[in-house]
Order: sequence, then C-alpha cells, then structure tokens
Amino acid sequence: MPAFNNFEFCSPTHFVFGKDAELQVGEKLAAFGAHKVLIHYGKHAKDCGLIDRVAKTLVDNGLEYVELGGVRPNPEINLCREGAKICKEQGVDFVLAVGGGSVIDSVKCIADSAVYDGDAWDLVSKKAPVKASLPIASVLTIPAAGSEGSKNSVISNDELGMKTGYGCDLHRPKFAFMNPELTMSLPPYQTAAGCTDMFAHLLERFFDDAENIPVTDNINLSLMKTVRANAVRVMEDPNNYDARANIMWAGALCHNGIAGCGRHEDWATHGMEHELSALKTEVTHGAGLAVLFPAWMDYVYEENPERFALYGREVFGISTTDDVKADARAAILATRQFFTSLGMPTHLSEFGFVESDFEKTVPTLRENKGEPFGSFKKLTMDDAVAIYKSAL
Amino acid sequence: MPAFNNFEFCSPTHFVFGKDAELQVGEKLAAFGAHKVLIHYGKHAKDCGLIDRVAKTLVDNGLEYVELGGVRPNPEINLCREGAKICKEQGVDFVLAVGGGSVIDSVKCIADSAVYDGDAWDLVSKKAPVKASLPIASVLTIPAAGSEGSKNSVISNDELGMKTGYGCDLHRPKFAFMNPELTMSLPPYQTAAGCTDMFAHLLERFFDDAENIPVTDNINLSLMKTVRANAVRVMEDPNNYDARANIMWAGALCHNGIAGCGRHEDWATHGMEHELSALKTEVTHGAGLAVLFPAWMDYVYEENPERFALYGREVFGISTTDDVKADARAAILATRQFFTSLGMPTHLSEFGFVESDFEKTVPTLRENKGEPFGSFKKLTMDDAVAIYKSAL
Repeated sequence: MPAFNNFEFCSPTHFVFGKDAELQVGEKLAAFGAHKVLIHYGKHAKDCGLIDRVAKTLVDNGLEYVELGGVRPNPEINLCREGAKICKEQGVDFVLAVGGGSVIDSVKCIADSAVYDGDAWDLVSKKAPVKASLPIASVLTIPAAGSEGSKNSVISNDELGMKTGYGCDLHRPKFAFMNPELTMSLPPYQTAAGCTDMFAHLLERFFDDAENIPVTDNINLSLMKTVRANAVRVMEDPNNYDARANIMWAGALCHNGIAGCGRHEDWATHGMEHELSALKTEVTHGAGLAVLFPAWMDYVYEENPERFALYGREVFGISTTDDVKADARAAILATRQFFTSLGMPTHLSEFGFVESDFEKTVPTLRENKGEPFGSFKKLTMDDAVAIYKSAL
Repeated sequence: MPAFNNFEFCSPTHFVFGKDAELQVGEKLAAFGAHKVLIHYGKHAKDCGLIDRVAKTLVDNGLEYVELGGVRPNPEINLCREGAKICKEQGVDFVLAVGGGSVIDSVKCIADSAVYDGDAWDLVSKKAPVKASLPIASVLTIPAAGSEGSKNSVISNDELGMKTGYGCDLHRPKFAFMNPELTMSLPPYQTAAGCTDMFAHLLERFFDDAENIPVTDNINLSLMKTVRANAVRVMEDPNNYDARANIMWAGALCHNGIAGCGRHEDWATHGMEHELSALKTEVTHGAGLAVLFPAWMDYVYEENPERFALYGREVFGISTTDDVKADARAAILATRQFFTSLGMPTHLSEFGFVESDFEKTVPTLRENKGEPFGSFKKLTMDDAVAIYKSAL
C-alpha cells in the first residue's frame, strides 16, 4: 500500500509581503475591479491609525468604502450578520479585514452571507452550503491563525454557546498584505499565543495515521524549526524585523495546506480547544492549545512513538536512542518547555476551568467533530474528558 | 539592514494529485466553464493511449476538443503559432498540455498568442506584453521543469537560433493533474534529468547575494533533501509509487516560487544552459545543468563559502569544520557526485560541444540575460566563457 494519499491543493491567495505592504491595498483592489469596500476591524487597528492609512489608499485609487469595527477575539455571528446587512444595503463588492485571525474569519462569514438570502449561521453550521461569496482580502496584524491564506473560518454563537469552524474555497482571500512592522507592537502574550497557534497547525498535520511522506514531512519539520527558533527571538527582541518576518510568513505557510499534502491530518486538539474558548470567550486560542497539545501527546504517543522521536530529533535536536518511547516522551517534554518558555500557561485551571466544565464541552464537541474523532488515535468522548482532566 | 526582502507570492494553480488524477480532467474543466479544448502533446503521450483516455473524460463531460501533437524537447515557436491559429479558427477556450515541461511551456505560448493579434514571438521576446491569455491546464507526465505550477515558459526560435524564457501570471495553469503512476515508464535518463532540473531550481534560489532567510531557506533545504533521497530511490526502483510521488510533488514546489520568497535568486546557470540547448536542441535541459552547475559553483563559491558549507551540511550531511572553504568544496564535490550517481554527464564535450561553440552562445546570452548577470556573483561574458570552458 502506498503511503502517499491522493490530495488536492490550491492556495490562490496573492501575498504582498514586506515593509509598507498595506500601502498597496488601494492599488491592488482597484486593479482587481473592486468599487466599494467594507473595512472590518477590531479596536486596536482603529486606535493606532492603521484603518485611516489603509482607507486613504482606497480613496487615492478611486474606491469608496464603509467601516465596521468591533470584532472581538472568538468573533461572534451577530457582528457577521451586521456586516452582511451593510454589504447588501450599500452595494459593497469587496470585504477587507484589517487585523488578525478573528477579523479575517469574521470577514469570510460576512462575505458568504452578504450574497446569501438566509441567516449567516446556516452557512457556519453547514445547514446550507456556501454557493457564492464576495471577494475578500486582509491586512494582517497578528500572525497566528493563518486565516489570511486559508479557506477556514471559526465563528462563535453566544446564544447557542457554540463555536464552529467551516471551510470553503470560495472565500479564500484574494490578497494578503503582510507588513512585519505592524506586528512589532503586539503584546508579548499575543505574540506568544500566535507562535503557539501556528506551531500547533503543523503538529495537527504532522501527527496522523499515515506513513511518512518525506516531501510534506520535511516541509512541515522545516517550518516547525523556523517557528521555534524565531519565536524565541521575537520574544527576546520584539523589534527584530527579520525574526518578525520569518514568523509572519511561516504563519501563513503553516495553515495554507502545504504542510499536510498527502497526509490525513488529525485536528483533534483544535476541536477540543474550540470548545474551551466557546465556553470562556476570553481564552486565547493559542494559549488553550499550549495547554491541551502536550496533554494530547501524553495520551496518544504510544500509538506511534517513532513519529514522536522523529519530531523530537528534527525540531528539538534530541538524539534518538534504543528506547523509542523514552525518545517520544522527551519530545513531548521539549514541546511543553517550548510553550512554557514563551510564557504560555500550563494548566486549564489557570483559565478558571473546573472539572464540571467538561460536561458542558463534550456534547458540542460531539456535535462538531463526531465520535470517534482525530486520526493519530481515534478518540471517544471519554478519551476527550480524560485529556481535558489531565490538563486541568 | 533587514535580510528579508519584500516579495509577492501567488501560486493559484489547483493541484489534483494522485492515482487516476487524469480521469478528473473533464469534470474539472467542465466545472471551470470550458467548452472547447485544444489538447497539445508529444509523441509518447499519444502512443501510450493517454491522450485518448484524457479525451474521453472531456467527451463524457460534454466538452469538445481538437488535438495538436508534435511537441519536441526545447519546444519551437512555429508549433506555438500553429496552435494559436487552431485556437482562433476553431473557437478553442481552454488549452490542455499532456506531457512534460516542453508541452506545458508550448501551451503557455499558444494560450497567450491565441488572443494576440501579432506574432507569437513578439510575446516571447517581450517586444509586446502579454495582456490576456486563454486558461490552461496540464496532465503532467515528466516531473522536472515545474512548469505545471509556474508562470514561466521557455521557447526556442530555430530561425533566429534563440531560446528565450518569459514569465506571466496570466498564463499560470488553472489546474495540474499529477498521477505519479504516469511517470513510472519514463526512461531512466529522463527521470534523472528531471530530478537534476528540479534540484537546480532550488540551487538557483538558494545561492544569491541575500542573507540567510530561515523560513524560506529551511523549506528550500527540505526540498533538496527530499529530491536527493527520492531521486536515488526512483533510479533504483522505478515502480516505487511513493518515491515517484515524492519526486513529482517536490518538482512542482521546487519551481512555484515558495523556495525563494524574500530572496533575490540567481539564475545565471539556467541562463547559460539555455544557450547550450538552443545551439544543440538535443541537449536535455537537466543534463546540461548537471554539467554546468558544479562548474558555476567552482567558479563562484569564494564569494560566500559559508552558504555552501550550510548547504553541504543540511543536504549531504557533511559536518562543518574550521576550514569553511574546504567545507564549501566538499559540498560542491557532493553535488557533482549526486548528479553523476544519477547517470548525468560530467563534461560538455559529451554533448559534442567544442570551445568555438561558446563564441556563438555569448551574444545571445548577453541579449537574454544582460551583463552583468546572476546575483551570488555578478558575472560578465568573460566569466561565462571561463565557466563554459571549465565544464568542457
């Protein structure tokens, strides 16, 4: 049996990377054929003057625009509904996110529902398929989610107490404007959580039930090495342009699909984390992953310790021995230490979770992921609870 | 000064990879909106029945098609003119290449000139810009040139004795159908030349005058390792599906631009090789590169021996010492040995070149590349002649 699974790969986003990248927004969107742009953002992008700077490039290129701020971490469906309403009422034909993954995810949902007659949550919950979408782009300010080049969006519904991901090639961003200088003012915690999130995107693709696939695995491991080395550097020297640039570009490549081609991928840990930040929307996704991923690793590594030993050797330089399970455990310890070194939390109790919370997360986890879920090891809901508890 | 240069990256091709990928052609092209397809190919694809198999998927999905065979290695402008004429006369709206880089390069030129009023060579020679192009796709049978996902095309003009490359985002392939099984019947020489070509695409991007850029360099080195390891494997075991798949997917990534983001790139050696295969069209591009690249390395490595030492350590496992120039020379020797191990030639005289030939290649080299050319070391025409001679 060949190891290399059939796959399709398409990453059509046009990346504009480097200093002053955001000043090219107006020119590129005008050339694309946009006329009226909805600019969507969170508080910081407005306060620091970035929105005005970007809006000016639109006006300078003969484009009209409207604004919608107010995006929060773990973006909520109601604001997407509002954005879609604005698009419909005002004839918006292009939606621009200025911010991080939350804003870009929100924009994807706005773009889909702006050309849909029903309610936006139909699309997120997959009750209705996305059949069309307005074109979107982003000016990225937080390297983390990889949403700037991905087909994925994760939207919360406070009323239902749910947080759900959906994917669609139609809302793949047309452009991503990525200026590393815009990321220098990020708070250290957010920088660290972003690095953790992108590293986790690689882990989800590396650990599954497929055999080794050198071309893809080598790219994945090379990105892990890059994130690991440069995460330490940006924490130590936040204004280091090269370190910021390496992290920012890696963040896009960690999640555009290139690191998983031909593999099955896992995504159990992301699924489990989404339920936690649905319950407590103040939990930063990357921070939740920093706690859950080592716990997941402890729970599953015996399925294929060789894979963990390979990861430990290539990413952390841990030389392999005759005792492959010990090598695997060393790799897990190195992972935990890496996240801790960035200032990430180590226990779910630090977010205020208690054991009884997991009774609430399991039903929505089952609904979102099905049972069993995951690929490296097929997990039941009992397994999920055991992992949550071990991370408490 | 930051090392990380501004860049733009866009690789919109939709890759359909794996067993029976070619059976999806009709469905994907119909969904794209094609109506009448020109199928373009060389002799082998017709003889082995592949063209008929692909054509059937078009008919099954309600598409019409016309055929044009006859593509040779180092594709010639006259056949492109003929293809463009067929497109214009018969209302073709999609051009499909079935074959390797030569066929795909030819299709790009056909697609451009099918919607251009003047002569096809105007576009290749950059006398006129490409302003529009028919959509194209390929069924790849030779992993080598990376043309299936690139914006580049290299076309020969026998009348003028020229071979010229041009690039344009408008003719980026919409789809690439890549079934590793189709590559199992390649003659060993062509498999080896293909592996050499893709490895050379990485070398051209790795060695330039920019500083280290970890995210890009690590991807590049990871691809070099993949090509090196799996090239040996496909030579030894031509029907090994996984080895073929790794080589085939690596070939696309070696040349879609991902391995050079933020770098200046060099391309001196490719420029010099194109002049040789323009003079003798029977020279396989990869084989020419196998001879010229080590000669170029010998000539230039002292500009930045550290870069060569890094390459030698990461790709060939040559441990670095206090003598960085010796480390660099060891890396060059390993490169030469790698190409030789694949059965590639080592001297230009094996193709029948003599010293006086270089008087003919230099004027067109100057016209195509300008003077000086290259980035790792800026080369004059005298340098080019010295490199040619050292490779004789």
